Amino acid sequence: MNTIINPPKKDWTQILERPTKTVDDIEGVVNEVFADIQKNGDAAIQKYTQKFDGVSLENNIVSVNEINEAINLVSEELKEAIQLAKENITKFHTAQKTAKVFVETTNGVSCWQEKRPIQKVGLYIPGGTAPLFSTVLMLAIPAQIAGCKEIVLCSPPNKEGKIHPAILYAANLCGVTKIIKVGGIQAIAGYTFGTETIPQVYKIFGPGNQFVTVAKQLSTKHGVAIDMPAGPSELLVVADDSANASYVASDLLSQAEHGADSQVILVSTSKEMITEVEKEIEIQLAKLSRVEIAQKAIQNSKSIFVENDETALELINEYGPEHFIVCTNNNDFYIDNIENAGSVFIGNYTPESAGDYASGTNHTLPTNGFSKSYSGVNLDSFTKSITFQKITKAGIKTIGKSIELMAAAEGLDAHKNAVSIRLKDLK
Amino acid sequence: MNTIINPPKKDWTQILERPTKTVDDIEGVVNEVFADIQKNGDAAIQKYTQKFDGVSLENNIVSVNEINEAINLVSEELKEAIQLAKENITKFHTAQKTAKVFVETTNGVSCWQEKRPIQKVGLYIPGGTAPLFSTVLMLAIPAQIAGCKEIVLCSPPNKEGKIHPAILYAANLCGVTKIIKVGGIQAIAGYTFGTETIPQVYKIFGPGNQFVTVAKQLSTKHGVAIDMPAGPSELLVVADDSANASYVASDLLSQAEHGADSQVILVSTSKEMITEVEKEIEIQLAKLSRVEIAQKAIQNSKSIFVENDETALELINEYGPEHFIVCTNNNDFYIDNIENAGSVFIGNYTPESAGDYASGTNHTLPTNGFSKSYSGVNLDSFTKSITFQKITKAGIKTIGKSIELMAAAEGLDAHKNAVSIRLKDLK
Repeated sequence: MNTIINPPKKDWTQILERPTKTVDDIEGVVNEVFADIQKNGDAAIQKYTQKFDGVSLENNIVSVNEINEAINLVSEELKEAIQLAKENITKFHTAQKTAKVFVETTNGVSCWQEKRPIQKVGLYIPGGTAPLFSTVLMLAIPAQIAGCKEIVLCSPPNKEGKIHPAILYAANLCGVTKIIKVGGIQAIAGYTFGTETIPQVYKIFGPGNQFVTVAKQLSTKHGVAIDMPAGPSELLVVADDSANASYVASDLLSQAEHGADSQVILVSTSKEMITEVEKEIEIQLAKLSRVEIAQKAIQNSKSIFVENDETALELINEYGPEHFIVCTNNNDFYIDNIENAGSVFIGNYTPESAGDYASGTNHTLPTNGFSKSYSGVNLDSFTKSITFQKITKAGIKTIGKSIELMAAAEGLDAHKNAVSIRLKDLK
Repeated sequence: MNTIINPPKKDWTQILERPTKTVDDIEGVVNEVFADIQKNGDAAIQKYTQKFDGVSLENNIVSVNEINEAINLVSEELKEAIQLAKENITKFHTAQKTAKVFVETTNGVSCWQEKRPIQKVGLYIPGGTAPLFSTVLMLAIPAQIAGCKEIVLCSPPNKEGKIHPAILYAANLCGVTKIIKVGGIQAIAGYTFGTETIPQVYKIFGPGNQFVTVAKQLSTKHGVAIDMPAGPSELLVVADDSANASYVASDLLSQAEHGADSQVILVSTSKEMITEVEKEIEIQLAKLSRVEIAQKAIQNSKSIFVENDETALELINEYGPEHFIVCTNNNDFYIDNIENAGSVFIGNYTPESAGDYASGTNHTLPTNGFSKSYSGVNLDSFTKSITFQKITKAGIKTIGKSIELMAAAEGLDAHKNAVSIRLKDLK
């Protein structure tokens, strides 16, 4: 880690810069795949699955047999772990339901707001070495609680044409209505335009590599919503002498193992803590299976010493971390005043991996500073709010004159007339 | 209007197609302006204001004097109308505040969700013939209620270098912190990169022409959030024999006057009502000041007869109208079952223009079918939710094993280790 002592404010932007790559150079291939799939549907899907995943599938819809096979392949103890996680995620996301908001703003003018589920959602689960079944829980559970009608899941097949059993098990457990073996750009294009087998959806959720990220961004141009823009995962820990250095090191490493471009930052008001954490990182790093990845991420990462909590907070709000761990003598100060963060982990016994799997909070969170404007995935991500209004004769008589005046002042005659024609009848 | 009787379902997509233009051809100019402003800041802003708005401004920040002048120029009766609208909008949006959601998902595992304001927001208000001060109310009021710190407003200057007094009056009344005379692509680029005078913001709100729309979309590539994608305004009315044909006609026309590309649709289970409404449109149209615009929009518009309410509802949900007026004997059926709509207006005395100005609901709504996945602007549009979690020793002992199992199954060693290292100490 690079240690920085008391950086002047003018250097913060540069110090906090994220190791994000530019995406311009892969837009070409994404555009090409989109155009092909829009035109040729499943035939093109099959072609790209062959090309990118190295497998030729006659049928890419996961069958009941495949699901049953997966159920048998997942160990009982993992099933129990998934069950516990599911229960906590369900509790926390169910509690996020909101009642109808009803207000009679003026006598006879009733306004209300109701949330309705997004009818068709598409979840994307990456393939690769780590089968992210936990992300299935994080997306499918709130989708089901929200009441989404179609919950589709796409994930790339491996060389044997299969999806990891834990992903299938979790998808089946959490109410996914259709599972399709398709990955990458082609999956996102399928969700965007619909094909013979992939349903067109209204909103796409889930992580992915740079190709998937750019594809999701392109899908918004075609009228599909996405959960949020994506970037490499990141963690910021603020720790003072009350923290446990080996715990802090373990948390920083758990983030670092995600990818060489992950970013971890330690902010501390204690130079001793920084030194201790750096020592602990060296000790723990050597024992990790993903040591090479974690090492690269750690090399890009920073320990920043600041004089006091106020400066630490200001710097953290400027960064807007995806994950934010607080282990200080002054935790409430950070909790009360944090403006920009995805999810906050408080105290020595709240590792970030708790939120990744089983505490109940969602792990799909805004990276890359997007916590300044975006929420992490939550129940509302799967709904939209609709407003309603009902005005009585008395109501329109009360507010009609104001509407007429404002419409006239905006030069919108017909808007005014829609009120005038009613007021005339009510005279 | 084009009347369509009992269209078969296979034709719905084509019948409901919106008159949206492609935006590809203006991306070039938008990219160019963005690059210039990123590099040259205010100097470039000034250049484009000269080029696009035809005025050279030495200082584009609206002064206290200009605001005082504007306050004097707005008539007392318009001020009163704005005040009434402000009160209703304030009531409805204040009621949308949500309490902290707190759940102890497992003994010793506390999770909660809190909304925090987006610190810096940029509002865009178009210039042109109609001074949209009502949109100032719809954006600045919820921003202020949410607690946004910086609420900036950009609007293009007219040839005299001024912004319409009603816009300045409304902005000052509703807590806008800085008003800048800059419009179009250059305003959005300014919000995206920041210049010497325009602050970089985290989220951009507000309507605009196609250039502004494309610029907003491009800003998302640079990490700025936007309220929603935009398209031409639209209204769908469902009416049966219980409706008043002249009221329905007045509502359709109030939408049609927005622009030649506005779309209005009448769906009815009564052929007589369709005939009457079309007659009424002809009568009322002739008297409008914006007759040419409204006429063009009406030419593109459709009256659709369907056999029953169920078919009507299905068709309406497929369309997902921005504004949806319900005037039938069966209103509750539509209210209960509408899945996709921006804002719903119920009964004979609830003209759409009520929601545009003064009922209290927001008028910044999803067009172009985006109501399938997007909410209209509401209080939450100016906040993001942050999740928090705090786990006790007992808590991590209860859920720790599950986290270890899941992390191991995903091949994420360091995630597992962050829990193991704590559990070991607690044995």
